[in-house]
Amino acid sequence: MGKVERKKWSEEFSEWYNELIETAGIQDKRYPVKGMNIWLPYGLKIMRNIERFIHSEMERTGHDEVLFPALIPETEFQKEAEHIAGFEGEVFWVTHAGHDPLDVRLILRPTSETAMYSMFSLWIRSHADLPFKIYQIVNVYRYETKHTRPLIRVREISRFFESHTAHDSFEDAERQIKEDLEIFDRLARFLALPYIVSKRPDWDKFPGAYYSLGAEVMMPDGRTLQIGTMHNYRQNFAKAYNIQYETESGDHEYVHQTTFGMSERLLAAVIAIHGDDRGMVLPPTVAPIQVVIVPIPKKDAEADVFAYAREIAEELRTGGLRVHVDERDIRPGRKFYDWELKGVPLRVEVGPRDVAGRKAVIARRDTLEKVTVERDTIVDEVRKTLDAIHENLYVRAREFLESHIKRVETIEEAKAVFEDRRGIVEIAWCGEESCGLEMEEILDAKMLGTPYPEEKAKAPEGKKCPVCGREAKFVARFARTY
Amino acid sequence: MGKVERKKWSEEFSEWYNELIETAGIQDKRYPVKGMNIWLPYGLKIMRNIERFIHSEMERTGHDEVLFPALIPETEFQKEAEHIAGFEGEVFWVTHAGHDPLDVRLILRPTSETAMYSMFSLWIRSHADLPFKIYQIVNVYRYETKHTRPLIRVREISRFFESHTAHDSFEDAERQIKEDLEIFDRLARFLALPYIVSKRPDWDKFPGAYYSLGAEVMMPDGRTLQIGTMHNYRQNFAKAYNIQYETESGDHEYVHQTTFGMSERLLAAVIAIHGDDRGMVLPPTVAPIQVVIVPIPKKDAEADVFAYAREIAEELRTGGLRVHVDERDIRPGRKFYDWELKGVPLRVEVGPRDVAGRKAVIARRDTLEKVTVERDTIVDEVRKTLDAIHENLYVRAREFLESHIKRVETIEEAKAVFEDRRGIVEIAWCGEESCGLEMEEILDAKMLGTPYPEEKAKAPEGKKCPVCGREAKFVARFARTY
Repeated sequence: MGKVERKKWSEEFSEWYNELIETAGIQDKRYPVKGMNIWLPYGLKIMRNIERFIHSEMERTGHDEVLFPALIPETEFQKEAEHIAGFEGEVFWVTHAGHDPLDVRLILRPTSETAMYSMFSLWIRSHADLPFKIYQIVNVYRYETKHTRPLIRVREISRFFESHTAHDSFEDAERQIKEDLEIFDRLARFLALPYIVSKRPDWDKFPGAYYSLGAEVMMPDGRTLQIGTMHNYRQNFAKAYNIQYETESGDHEYVHQTTFGMSERLLAAVIAIHGDDRGMVLPPTVAPIQVVIVPIPKKDAEADVFAYAREIAEELRTGGLRVHVDERDIRPGRKFYDWELKGVPLRVEVGPRDVAGRKAVIARRDTLEKVTVERDTIVDEVRKTLDAIHENLYVRAREFLESHIKRVETIEEAKAVFEDRRGIVEIAWCGEESCGLEMEEILDAKMLGTPYPEEKAKAPEGKKCPVCGREAKFVARFARTY
Repeated sequence: MGKVERKKWSEEFSEWYNELIETAGIQDKRYPVKGMNIWLPYGLKIMRNIERFIHSEMERTGHDEVLFPALIPETEFQKEAEHIAGFEGEVFWVTHAGHDPLDVRLILRPTSETAMYSMFSLWIRSHADLPFKIYQIVNVYRYETKHTRPLIRVREISRFFESHTAHDSFEDAERQIKEDLEIFDRLARFLALPYIVSKRPDWDKFPGAYYSLGAEVMMPDGRTLQIGTMHNYRQNFAKAYNIQYETESGDHEYVHQTTFGMSERLLAAVIAIHGDDRGMVLPPTVAPIQVVIVPIPKKDAEADVFAYAREIAEELRTGGLRVHVDERDIRPGRKFYDWELKGVPLRVEVGPRDVAGRKAVIARRDTLEKVTVERDTIVDEVRKTLDAIHENLYVRAREFLESHIKRVETIEEAKAVFEDRRGIVEIAWCGEESCGLEMEEILDAKMLGTPYPEEKAKAPEGKKCPVCGREAKFVARFARTY
């Protein structure tokens, strides 16, 4: 397998990423509000392909799509104490309309719990209404004071996915979390993204949650990026918003609730993790163009080569593939450059000799390998190669992730990891907040939490917490995060 | 063809509509912000089908999809004088974030000209970039002070379509308006909606436009509803936002711009115009369920009837239709009621005798007619009937529209129309604003404008303006509007 240079990608990742977002046509960052960017057509097409998969998973699992207003009255927002405490520092306030102040100020939703749950209390009446499962993909707003970065840390998340469910018991809510994890796993495979799931420490739960899970991927610079969260709210919000149902025996009980959240960070992960020095490498599942055909005509043989290219394109399209023939009047090398930057997984090159010999050259974007194939078997060859690219992207990323998780015994070892190549450190922990916070401080890293499912979270027999020296209960994960 | 009762629909339309929006599962109006409603799953599915058609038309005509932020800095908003004057009374202001006031206040977009056009000036460099055609479907905000009504007059339009184009000449911009009209016509046929197009009088143009066109449908109560607009901006915005391109000869010129707008009002029109006393009647093109199969089992023959129903469903699905089998444990009459309310265009009823005789009963939602068909030809029969329903909806609505357009000679005749059954009045007009406004006043109606294309707008030879008595130049249309 061909070796691929990923030097700028790995050594100057931050610059690589910021530059690529614009050069590859994902977003324009020049919009005159900080942290709010414009989706360009190519980037939006990739995101739509990701969302199409999410919609189909939601349908498969019986979630109904809804759309709530983006504005939430202050009075609703304030009903759950932990939630407001967690968000009030970062919401945008709508205070006036036309020339007048509003009677009740409105916030731009940072997430939709407080918009939705007063309606849940009207919609959910009886056990027959449960489980109740809805979702939406909408724009949400957070006044980020940290450094912003396209798709990753923004003030307008324009593609925010949130599902909200209500259940008749804690057990059924737990079953929902399992379903969310299964959906997430299918999505991650669809995107060729390996990931880990951690149960967040109590001090880093979602505001109002009983517990929170986070799914992380490993970015090229060794920092982690959270790309999915699942929360079990127990009855916290149900009590604040009075969401009760009538049981079979006629009693009234509060529902149990869960949420599952994702965003355009999924696209950030795809771009960052699969990319290389030449640009993006898109998994064929989400590539707007899966195959680009570049005719390489000689003088006087142009018409034949173009006709041959179009004929192959038509056949690939009939085979269900997304194909583009680049007929621009520029040098082939320039075309290669453009489509490599844009991450098209497979390039087909055809010249006069290919026309004569009924052949074509196919070039993989991931390994940059080229092979010559027979014209008559091209649909099969292309399909097989696209599958191989997808698998290779996944395996390559999984190796990268696994090689960046290090289990250590001492704080010194942990510190050495972060001084060296970063990644995720796993270390024993007694479970006390004070020790966890102290380790965060010493390591200048965030505790992602404990491995999930919980069987994997237990510390091995006899291990001690490196801070207090007491018996360790858990394995805790630390990382520098986005 | 069966006669259909549309009494409540026609005589108490306003109540009928407001009630149906909730009972048929389109939107919930109980959200605690006036004029902002929640899209329910069934309503959203219909809207998504409408949008899918719009997306495909945009692709066909070479418009690229983008997404701009929903917030616009006050400084950008204020660059075009007419535009700000037209909108400043109805925008929502974001003045604070977290605990602090913003340095530059932000508005929630009422439309996106002022968000987009400073970017146009960066994106458009040369004649080779033109025509430049983009669109988005987004949420926009208008602080409506009039009575709000779901999908029709709201403070959050959550499904707002807007395409924006730039051209190298007035002629090319005019060609774009023609393309918009063609797209609109295809969409209207897809929705079985007959309509008229008028050129708005100068005093009712879009703020900043050189001229505006509006497409209207006729609602059951004789009022019109604007469901599409096309604007030629000439170089107004290009000058305000400095959008210039380099011509082939190296000069710099301002672009010509157009926009085309639509919204969830398209769904309002579908619901209102095709409905009847029993509820919605959806065109098969947009119905989330095109065929509902209701098994009518006798005791001891349940399994056979359900199996037969499922088998027919499977065959219809294979034929590309959207089918639902209603297996709920309730009376068939109750099922009929539910699906009629929700506008499913075709119902298939199957009972033990149908199983035995290999037949099925199909019932049309539009005419309420029932016929028995052979099991073996059911896919064809259903397809043919769905086509007939679509055509009937269109013809019925066209007759309604045509019978509600009345050409009159005098103000008295015009007044009589509005006292009687309303509709659209066409009357001669000299073209002076003062006479137009006076007619609006006398008739308590709005001037929609003059018929478009402009060949149809000329007053017949010798006609006088009924207000000033001078030679009439135009035919003007008046209506009570939503």
